[in-house]
Amino acid sequence: MPLSERPIIGFLTDFGLDGAAATCRGVMLGICRDAQIIDISHTVRKYAIRDGAFVLRAALPFLPLGVHVGVVDPGVGTARRPIAIRTGRGDVLIGPDNGLLMPAANALGGADAARELTNRDLWLPQTTATFHGRDIFAPVAAHLAASDAGFEAVGSEVPIADLVRLPEATAHAAPGRLDTGVTYIDSFGNLRLAGGRDELASAFGTLSEGDRFTVTIGENPPEVAAFARSFGHVDPGATLLYVDSSGNVAMADNQADLAARLRAEAGMAVTVQAT
Amino acid sequence: MPLSERPIIGFLTDFGLDGAAATCRGVMLGICRDAQIIDISHTVRKYAIRDGAFVLRAALPFLPLGVHVGVVDPGVGTARRPIAIRTGRGDVLIGPDNGLLMPAANALGGADAARELTNRDLWLPQTTATFHGRDIFAPVAAHLAASDAGFEAVGSEVPIADLVRLPEATAHAAPGRLDTGVTYIDSFGNLRLAGGRDELASAFGTLSEGDRFTVTIGENPPEVAAFARSFGHVDPGATLLYVDSSGNVAMADNQADLAARLRAEAGMAVTVQAT
Amino acid sequence: MPLSERPIIGFLTDFGLDGAAATCRGVMLGICRDAQIIDISHTVRKYAIRDGAFVLRAALPFLPLGVHVGVVDPGVGTARRPIAIRTGRGDVLIGPDNGLLMPAANALGGADAARELTNRDLWLPQTTATFHGRDIFAPVAAHLAASDAGFEAVGSEVPIADLVRLPEATAHAAPGRLDTGVTYIDSFGNLRLAGGRDELASAFGTLSEGDRFTVTIGENPPEVAAFARSFGHVDPGATLLYVDSSGNVAMADNQADLAARLRAEAGMAVTVQAT
Repeated sequence: MPLSERPIIGFLTDFGLDGAAATCRGVMLGICRDAQIIDISHTVRKYAIRDGAFVLRAALPFLPLGVHVGVVDPGVGTARRPIAIRTGRGDVLIGPDNGLLMPAANALGGADAARELTNRDLWLPQTTATFHGRDIFAPVAAHLAASDAGFEAVGSEVPIADLVRLPEATAHAAPGRLDTGVTYIDSFGNLRLAGGRDELASAFGTLSEGDRFTVTIGENPPEVAAFARSFGHVDPGATLLYVDSSGNVAMADNQADLAARLRAEAGMAVTVQAT
Repeated sequence: MPLSERPIIGFLTDFGLDGAAATCRGVMLGICRDAQIIDISHTVRKYAIRDGAFVLRAALPFLPLGVHVGVVDPGVGTARRPIAIRTGRGDVLIGPDNGLLMPAANALGGADAARELTNRDLWLPQTTATFHGRDIFAPVAAHLAASDAGFEAVGSEVPIADLVRLPEATAHAAPGRLDTGVTYIDSFGNLRLAGGRDELASAFGTLSEGDRFTVTIGENPPEVAAFARSFGHVDPGATLLYVDSSGNVAMADNQADLAARLRAEAGMAVTVQAT
Repeated sequence: MPLSERPIIGFLTDFGLDGAAATCRGVMLGICRDAQIIDISHTVRKYAIRDGAFVLRAALPFLPLGVHVGVVDPGVGTARRPIAIRTGRGDVLIGPDNGLLMPAANALGGADAARELTNRDLWLPQTTATFHGRDIFAPVAAHLAASDAGFEAVGSEVPIADLVRLPEATAHAAPGRLDTGVTYIDSFGNLRLAGGRDELASAFGTLSEGDRFTVTIGENPPEVAAFARSFGHVDPGATLLYVDSSGNVAMADNQADLAARLRAEAGMAVTVQAT
């Protein structure tokens, strides 16, 4: 196989850094020796399906076409289905049917088809009830990457409409006011919020650098934030409202950890008002 | 070299994430440009040889055959020997002779032969007393992976019986009681215990989902745990006793961190009794 | 392309582990499918340009010749320049012009030429003001690695003398006394100090294992440290003065975290005196 045609496997889990993800990488390479595995993250907050979904959705559109595995799976070993989703772009997403994969699928052209992973020939010969990443998801992904099994071979079809979806936070714009919520807290402590440029424009019209807003986050007292293109356009420690690199509304303290300062968490309500 | 024959190098350290492991990867790739390095973990608890041994033993059987380097080495630069061990499966394990590598060797078909790394031609030209990972272990592994040196070339033979072994925690089963101990705390805060299905059966006969046990961990008051196949079979926050993905007895709080709740540590005594 | 000629891209950031670095890797591989990316670190202390510079300088001389990207960039989206530096060894370093890259350039034979990244044809088609790692640095590096653009193509020349340099900590030796400072705290909590063997010799003459020193770190009361080749030459918990694997003066507690014990930070003044 030419180097340039190596199959790509993106890989995200909440397994942490102590060897479980490497075990899965070993399984994948044992089946598909040519695979190029791109570790997306293995430090997703434990059991935080929405956090994993956010990171997958942000990263996967920038990865080459491939088979991508996501495992944030508090229901491992219970009745939740292991699934594969084929996207409009042509990727295959593999993981538990708990809502983790759907936002990424939507960002990759939508979910075109889905299958339950029922074909045990593509699993490890021995499986356990607590490590489907190693026993089911990794080997199925590697067989697909190696093209020794096609998408239809992984198991029985599942109607797209039957896949689990998590309700997504939404932004509501009214004149002079945006009601939104924290969708993710990134490693810098910046708050990623629901809604994007359109919702900002609906609420506040055309924004200019330095426009000031009053922002209420959860039960915290109101903050004043300045609209800015990037962090360094406000003083160190000052609070800014900005449009993040995925096009979403976001909020940060320049060179400081806003989430820690306000004890902010994903899911908190946020209200942005013109000052 | 065909892509599919790239030599595998597994790599585990307690170096943390700030560049030391990458320095070693650079050394390996400078010597063996075709190597496929699989990082197993670099966040092994500092100086915790047993933790490193646990992770190596759990991961390596799932990695392809290769040369694997383990460095948890509080004795770096002292008289402890740098060694290479050839396993029954055909892998070569490289690291300090402090017990780190032996459990993995046993899991890979046993230690067949061992050598002390005395051949300085395979080291970096300049070596230091504090970074044998970079100066000795990485380059020797890369020369073996590149097949420009054979196992016998790394140095003088060491009798297998002379290799350092750490005493392993064991489980003692009596009717209605299992005396065991914490062998490892994983990134989810689950307690991995000594002993497996056989010891459980000796102590308690055939177990059924939901069977209840009283478990005492270190100096903590007794806990009640239900036997379950996987985490989601008990309520969130409830405690379960289970057989982990390596076949060992283990204990967890579903979707919570049991080790943090009980301040549990590797080495603590654990007693499991029928309720 | 033969496997052994795969272009190397070293990669260091303060992005943390939650997907931003993987997004950049995806961009690189989309442009240069054959690249071998070596992640150096993505957990550089947030905004700590000097920490990033220290890690890059320590690691890069051990990586194969390549294009290397460093992003610790509190000024992202402001007037600071995105640059490429060609080194005497032949590497190209890419990142913000804030001093991050210069120590590594000096360690790689010096900065031979520099260019500002002004050629938007080598950027992603859409760019944002907050993620130049993904939008500018990663794609420019990948185009260079793929050799579909030469160094001169990245943008307009910048005189080497105009590049931003951060003042480096220095060591001053007097008879019986070395005035130095903490340049970096590694993941073990060891203090890396300014100055090396020469400065030690100027201050104290020829050192012998076990020589004792009084060391004052910041506002802490004086510590007594023994000169030793490596950690295990002093008792567990004892403090040693040593020459680290980069040839610099350093200080550690054997098998313990000296920086945490003394609340030491990069930049603190350190005085070493003969006892």
